[in-house]
Amino acid sequence: MAPVDKSFGGTLDANFVDHLTQGVLTNNTTVLAQAITLIESAKTEHQKIAVKLLEKCIGHQTESIRIGITGVPGVGKSTFIESFGKLLLSKGKRVAVLSVDPSSNETKGSILGDKVRMESLAKEQHAFIRPSPTGGSLGGVARKTRETIILLETAGYDIILIETVGVGQNETTVRDMTDFFLLLKLPGAGDELQGIKRGVMEMADAIAINKADGHNKKPAESAKMEFSRALHLFAAKDNGWVPKVMTCSAVENKGLTSIWSCIENFVTLSKENGFFEQTRKHQNKKWLREHINHILLRDFYEHPDISKALSVLEKKVVDGEITPFRAAENLVKNYRET
Amino acid sequence: MAPVDKSFGGTLDANFVDHLTQGVLTNNTTVLAQAITLIESAKTEHQKIAVKLLEKCIGHQTESIRIGITGVPGVGKSTFIESFGKLLLSKGKRVAVLSVDPSSNETKGSILGDKVRMESLAKEQHAFIRPSPTGGSLGGVARKTRETIILLETAGYDIILIETVGVGQNETTVRDMTDFFLLLKLPGAGDELQGIKRGVMEMADAIAINKADGHNKKPAESAKMEFSRALHLFAAKDNGWVPKVMTCSAVENKGLTSIWSCIENFVTLSKENGFFEQTRKHQNKKWLREHINHILLRDFYEHPDISKALSVLEKKVVDGEITPFRAAENLVKNYRET
Repeated sequence: MAPVDKSFGGTLDANFVDHLTQGVLTNNTTVLAQAITLIESAKTEHQKIAVKLLEKCIGHQTESIRIGITGVPGVGKSTFIESFGKLLLSKGKRVAVLSVDPSSNETKGSILGDKVRMESLAKEQHAFIRPSPTGGSLGGVARKTRETIILLETAGYDIILIETVGVGQNETTVRDMTDFFLLLKLPGAGDELQGIKRGVMEMADAIAINKADGHNKKPAESAKMEFSRALHLFAAKDNGWVPKVMTCSAVENKGLTSIWSCIENFVTLSKENGFFEQTRKHQNKKWLREHINHILLRDFYEHPDISKALSVLEKKVVDGEITPFRAAENLVKNYRET
Repeated sequence: MAPVDKSFGGTLDANFVDHLTQGVLTNNTTVLAQAITLIESAKTEHQKIAVKLLEKCIGHQTESIRIGITGVPGVGKSTFIESFGKLLLSKGKRVAVLSVDPSSNETKGSILGDKVRMESLAKEQHAFIRPSPTGGSLGGVARKTRETIILLETAGYDIILIETVGVGQNETTVRDMTDFFLLLKLPGAGDELQGIKRGVMEMADAIAINKADGHNKKPAESAKMEFSRALHLFAAKDNGWVPKVMTCSAVENKGLTSIWSCIENFVTLSKENGFFEQTRKHQNKKWLREHINHILLRDFYEHPDISKALSVLEKKVVDGEITPFRAAENLVKNYRET
């Protein structure tokens, strides 16, 4: 008999998988939230159900646009997503918002937590906001986010906004699961052009200079010119898209329609020339790779002999009796032999 | 017979390991650079030599202070490290500089590349600057950086500066391999306090407001007050250290001596109460963990049957014949059975 799981108020059996699948397909948001919690769970029995659920969902997904949104802290991502999300709702879209932020594991979110963010968007009927998954590495967070996207698309959300913070690895992760990548910038914010990582700008399909209001209007226009010039230094993208630079004010609801038009143009172009589908296929290959890594490591660490042997070796490493790499080689060798 | 390796101009045998070890121990910078290149190489035969070299180096390391330095692009990290590095040289220290920047894999570095950075520090006799290792994930870069630290300490460098960029995962990685963590900030740079990830501030042992010169002096003092207040919101650190907030100007060489005194005080305190050693032990445990993961994945992907099977599955995933997670499960299952 399948085990009873109190956190899900029932037995983790085939009926439960059907219950979840039905709930997700009909966009029962309570069940949807529960299904995402299951995906985010590290427990083996939850993971098994999650795989079954996902297999049932794939093939029932709504055609969506997955949009990555990034920018440094203070650039106004939450306000932007709130205003932009409402614009999309007014156009009849159904909008889901996810975060990729591995640092939130340790930090329990930013000082202004996820709960108070995007309050007015969260109240809308056709919007669904999910805070960052907790636990695990960037790879773990990425895996959970990918699987959550499948659920959201199965539930009928056709715009998936995935926000992330920072400069570097987070962006690469988010770009690898989105169709369009939007970089938010501030006018004259001290990160002069030469300090900006070429790679982050290269990833962007559009740059929006936010907070282009009040006394920032003029600096925003200068920043726009500067970024436009900088983008010309890069080689043209394979998909034929020329990245756009725009200004906007999320607070004053200005420039958001242009950003949406830009995204629509991008989708039209890349669907016409086949790059939209090609990118998603390439992303699925990456997903395969990451899922393999996940399984390999999970199976190793969950092996009953490993945790005991590992703690013995850890002690030896700490006491300086063995080097970390020798200890690692020995442990894996023993694992192979069992 | 061991293979002849043209990139290292000789045979990869025990004599070569001895040659490298001697070169590192005597701080022959040409050999040291070659040894680091070996560590950074992904080739199996290079990795084997690297493990042997590292085993010989461990136990011969100079007592060092490993200092992590982070900040957003534009904060002036390179200039800071140049000025700070020269201060340390003037105090008789031997200074090595490393970068942890996985995004540089794709981006070939920032627009101003590593070569032109820190030009005057690089010319100094007792300074050694190594650009970011290329290739691989953040985990791969972290592993190579840890092993490079061992070589540098064996070569007698007693101050290891490890810089990184961004907000999030990079910082966690660098904190996990350093004794002291310095966060550089700009005065009034638009990333208001509420936008700063609590976690990055919590990691910091000190915050230095850089570019506190000219018309920035007053904003820098305000920022200092603001950050000091914010730090009071956090729980005291286990090691008894109270994080400091300072201002400095790397360009005008101001405030750097205070930062160095602060680090010296930190080291004295944490050596006295045992936290210095305890932290390093904890870091070695993490290193063990990461090295295990590295071996597990390397062995899998280097298995002769895997690459063929993987490309067949990739095609099926791309063609929508199988889901990425089912494909991953099948491949790992087959691998276990061979």
